[in-house]
Amino acid sequence: MSILSKWRKRLHDIIYEADTPAGKGFDLILLILILLSVVFVMLESVPRIDARYHEQLYIGEWIITIFFSLEYIARILTVKKPFKYIFSFYGIIDLLSTIPLYISFFLAGSSYLLTVRALRLLRVFRILKVTRYIGASNKLKRALLHSRPKIFVFLFAVLIISIIAGTIMYLVEGEENGFNSIPHSVYWCIVTLTTVGYGDISPATPLGQFIASIIMIMGYGIIAVPTGIVTAEFARDAIDINTQSCTNCNESKHKDNAKYCHSCGEELNPEPLN
Amino acid sequence: MSILSKWRKRLHDIIYEADTPAGKGFDLILLILILLSVVFVMLESVPRIDARYHEQLYIGEWIITIFFSLEYIARILTVKKPFKYIFSFYGIIDLLSTIPLYISFFLAGSSYLLTVRALRLLRVFRILKVTRYIGASNKLKRALLHSRPKIFVFLFAVLIISIIAGTIMYLVEGEENGFNSIPHSVYWCIVTLTTVGYGDISPATPLGQFIASIIMIMGYGIIAVPTGIVTAEFARDAIDINTQSCTNCNESKHKDNAKYCHSCGEELNPEPLN
Amino acid sequence: MSILSKWRKRLHDIIYEADTPAGKGFDLILLILILLSVVFVMLESVPRIDARYHEQLYIGEWIITIFFSLEYIARILTVKKPFKYIFSFYGIIDLLSTIPLYISFFLAGSSYLLTVRALRLLRVFRILKVTRYIGASNKLKRALLHSRPKIFVFLFAVLIISIIAGTIMYLVEGEENGFNSIPHSVYWCIVTLTTVGYGDISPATPLGQFIASIIMIMGYGIIAVPTGIVTAEFARDAIDINTQSCTNCNESKHKDNAKYCHSCGEELNPEPLN
Amino acid sequence: MSILSKWRKRLHDIIYEADTPAGKGFDLILLILILLSVVFVMLESVPRIDARYHEQLYIGEWIITIFFSLEYIARILTVKKPFKYIFSFYGIIDLLSTIPLYISFFLAGSSYLLTVRALRLLRVFRILKVTRYIGASNKLKRALLHSRPKIFVFLFAVLIISIIAGTIMYLVEGEENGFNSIPHSVYWCIVTLTTVGYGDISPATPLGQFIASIIMIMGYGIIAVPTGIVTAEFARDAIDINTQSCTNCNESKHKDNAKYCHSCGEELNPEPLN
Repeated sequence: MSILSKWRKRLHDIIYEADTPAGKGFDLILLILILLSVVFVMLESVPRIDARYHEQLYIGEWIITIFFSLEYIARILTVKKPFKYIFSFYGIIDLLSTIPLYISFFLAGSSYLLTVRALRLLRVFRILKVTRYIGASNKLKRALLHSRPKIFVFLFAVLIISIIAGTIMYLVEGEENGFNSIPHSVYWCIVTLTTVGYGDISPATPLGQFIASIIMIMGYGIIAVPTGIVTAEFARDAIDINTQSCTNCNESKHKDNAKYCHSCGEELNPEPLN
Repeated sequence: MSILSKWRKRLHDIIYEADTPAGKGFDLILLILILLSVVFVMLESVPRIDARYHEQLYIGEWIITIFFSLEYIARILTVKKPFKYIFSFYGIIDLLSTIPLYISFFLAGSSYLLTVRALRLLRVFRILKVTRYIGASNKLKRALLHSRPKIFVFLFAVLIISIIAGTIMYLVEGEENGFNSIPHSVYWCIVTLTTVGYGDISPATPLGQFIASIIMIMGYGIIAVPTGIVTAEFARDAIDINTQSCTNCNESKHKDNAKYCHSCGEELNPEPLN
Repeated sequence: MSILSKWRKRLHDIIYEADTPAGKGFDLILLILILLSVVFVMLESVPRIDARYHEQLYIGEWIITIFFSLEYIARILTVKKPFKYIFSFYGIIDLLSTIPLYISFFLAGSSYLLTVRALRLLRVFRILKVTRYIGASNKLKRALLHSRPKIFVFLFAVLIISIIAGTIMYLVEGEENGFNSIPHSVYWCIVTLTTVGYGDISPATPLGQFIASIIMIMGYGIIAVPTGIVTAEFARDAIDINTQSCTNCNESKHKDNAKYCHSCGEELNPEPLN
Repeated sequence: MSILSKWRKRLHDIIYEADTPAGKGFDLILLILILLSVVFVMLESVPRIDARYHEQLYIGEWIITIFFSLEYIARILTVKKPFKYIFSFYGIIDLLSTIPLYISFFLAGSSYLLTVRALRLLRVFRILKVTRYIGASNKLKRALLHSRPKIFVFLFAVLIISIIAGTIMYLVEGEENGFNSIPHSVYWCIVTLTTVGYGDISPATPLGQFIASIIMIMGYGIIAVPTGIVTAEFARDAIDINTQSCTNCNESKHKDNAKYCHSCGEELNPEPLN
């Protein structure tokens, strides 16, 4: 093995592994830099702070960006299948996290897009005793996936209600009360249905307030639907808590009161033998 | 079979079926036109856009409306029981989707009612691999139907609370703080109970703010009720949806993916024999 | 039986029963009058409407009030245990529904308290095919009762959080940003925790907005608690859906998979014999 | 036993026990004083009330503070392991409840921190028939603890969404519409996601309103997640809390009120034998 490939192997371990001390240290430094750079970008947008510390923040951003660029290159060089990494979820985020600053030479304002780096914070799960959180986020993901068709139907209903109710409110309230176009009314309707209620526009005529009341109560009821959907998915998980695995086919997640494996018919032991 | 009845049959297949390529294509074009026309109506209501593109939007709406009118007539002519279609849910929506523009000759503003066309978007479910979504929306419907008496009792309670609390706030706050009539106060109370909170009216006296706090916390608790109702219905569904009974011991309510009875170990028929 | 006691019996049937046609008719008229009188009181508080129709509304209220007074007296005279009625829930509401107008001779404004009549609308459940709704409202009541200690702990937590967070915000934001006293800050904190968010007061300093963000996210999480509590109660109900009654002791509400009555040990028939 | 140690024992019983009449009386007086002092501090912050009653409130606070100081000293003197008390949750709160007023000699405004005393109200659970509430709060605590990893993942997601959506809104809306820095935009985004919606800042451009609509609907969906998590935990609890196993067939998870095993009909022992 040449020195080069040895170094490549070593670098790979540091960058991609989180079990060795070096790998853990690397990930920790990375996280701190990500946090720092997100904070830098946010602070730069505050006029008072930018006026005083513009230079420091600018230099800090460049240092971190150069580090991230080098890291990105190292990731490509040390991995076996570079294209798989480049087009993976993390690969794309890693790229998006470096380029805005380079683009900002040509296009003012694009440097703010560096906050995309916040997505890199997802790497935090690699450092934490990760399995528990992965398990949790897998459960979240699964519950959401299972509920997808129901949620699709639900969002569709919300959209249609918003368009129709928005039009009615536009006709009832009219421009003099701030409902100055149908898209604007639809926006108001979504603000109301979701119970956000900014109050930048609000009905002023008695009829408008009456219709708004109905929309609000509908929104109040509608909120029960996604909650019910997701909860039922979680509950389904929670209910299958018979922790036995079948001694024959290894299937787990039996019903609570199961005596026989639902997958192969083998008898289960209701209580561990003592 | 005459040529006429053959054409009628063919047209029926295109319009009403979604399995043939022609039927699918027709449904897709229909959906795009519906979306376009809803967007046109919404854009027409935006003063700046209307000022510049009034003519184009107007022509576009007419073209789509004429197409929809022809489609409506074709639907009546090709179906076997035209009256059943005319008075069906979709039949009424199809009619309501065409007439507003004709009425707008006599009655200005009525053309905005064309956004009723948004309801036609429900046809989207015919194109999508529909069964899953139908299943989902049936479940939603069933859960809501089952919860109806509970929801009725609940809404009744909300209404009575709103009227009484609204009156109290009217007496406490009075006209000088925006609570200028009992209906207006009741409106405010609904805005508060549903946690929308526009802030167009808000209590200004200490006593009023105290009462408002109680109403808010009540509203916060009350939101639990419809959620609990609907969730419990979903959960009941989610728990056991394998409707088979065991042929040996008659145990039902097996897990969704069960192949063997969890009570006696007998094999279940996962799929109905054909 | 004297004519008097016969009449008394007949009146009792009309007023208290809802099964006979006369009783049903009476209840229906009552409901309409209740609704009318609530609407009258609400309309009277609208300046524009009161200016024009004051006299009509005033006369209408008096007619209804006199009718209610007579009805109240009749209820006392025809019932066997008048004191039990007088001090019952409905008895007190019936009294409160008549006196405000009499008091308004001495005390201006008290006539608005007539909206207490809204509570009489609860009688609607007597006309509707009532059992289903009673069942539903009993379930609601039971679920809420069971959750009482949990809800008490929860409200206590909300209160303590509000007082402490309110004080912090008062110190951070101060009077110049509208947080002009601790009670006012606590009010703001409740408005925020419950996600109502009027916006009559809102944090203006960066630190205040940071603290407010934490409060909001806490509120967002806290809302899960009452929902979870009530839902779990409903779910407990929903799960016990084995509809068999024990042939021995008549106990119902067995567990889904029960084979023996949990109350007396008698065997249950898992499936109806055919 | 010396008189001193006898007195110490007696004082300990009064202060720490809640079963004896003296202990109960002491706790009750304590609670009233805590409530009073919190009210005093809150009232002192109201300019109008402070102007008139400053002296009375000031004296009242001092009297209560001195009482609390003596109580704190007595608690330390009478308990066997004083350091364990001092560094316990209640010990720290008891200390924090007395010092702010002493500090206010040197540091104006610190006396408002006396509202920390609100935490002492948690002692209320000692007087109430406590076990039920402890049980309830233990269940709350357990459900929240179990859901911790899921809630951590969830909060992380909310944070990342807020940062990225906040940046986009900053670029879209800009300073002229109130989105005058990224941290401010992130604050707005949290206000929106949590459906609080103050309306102190709200999008003014059509594109901004469109993005805001998406954020709101996301927030509406996201609220389902913590609710689902917590509810599923409660539901798991609620389903089966009779912890007995049948002595005959070892079946557990009986209904709460079960007297006989639902699986084999054997009698269960409803109460542990004494």
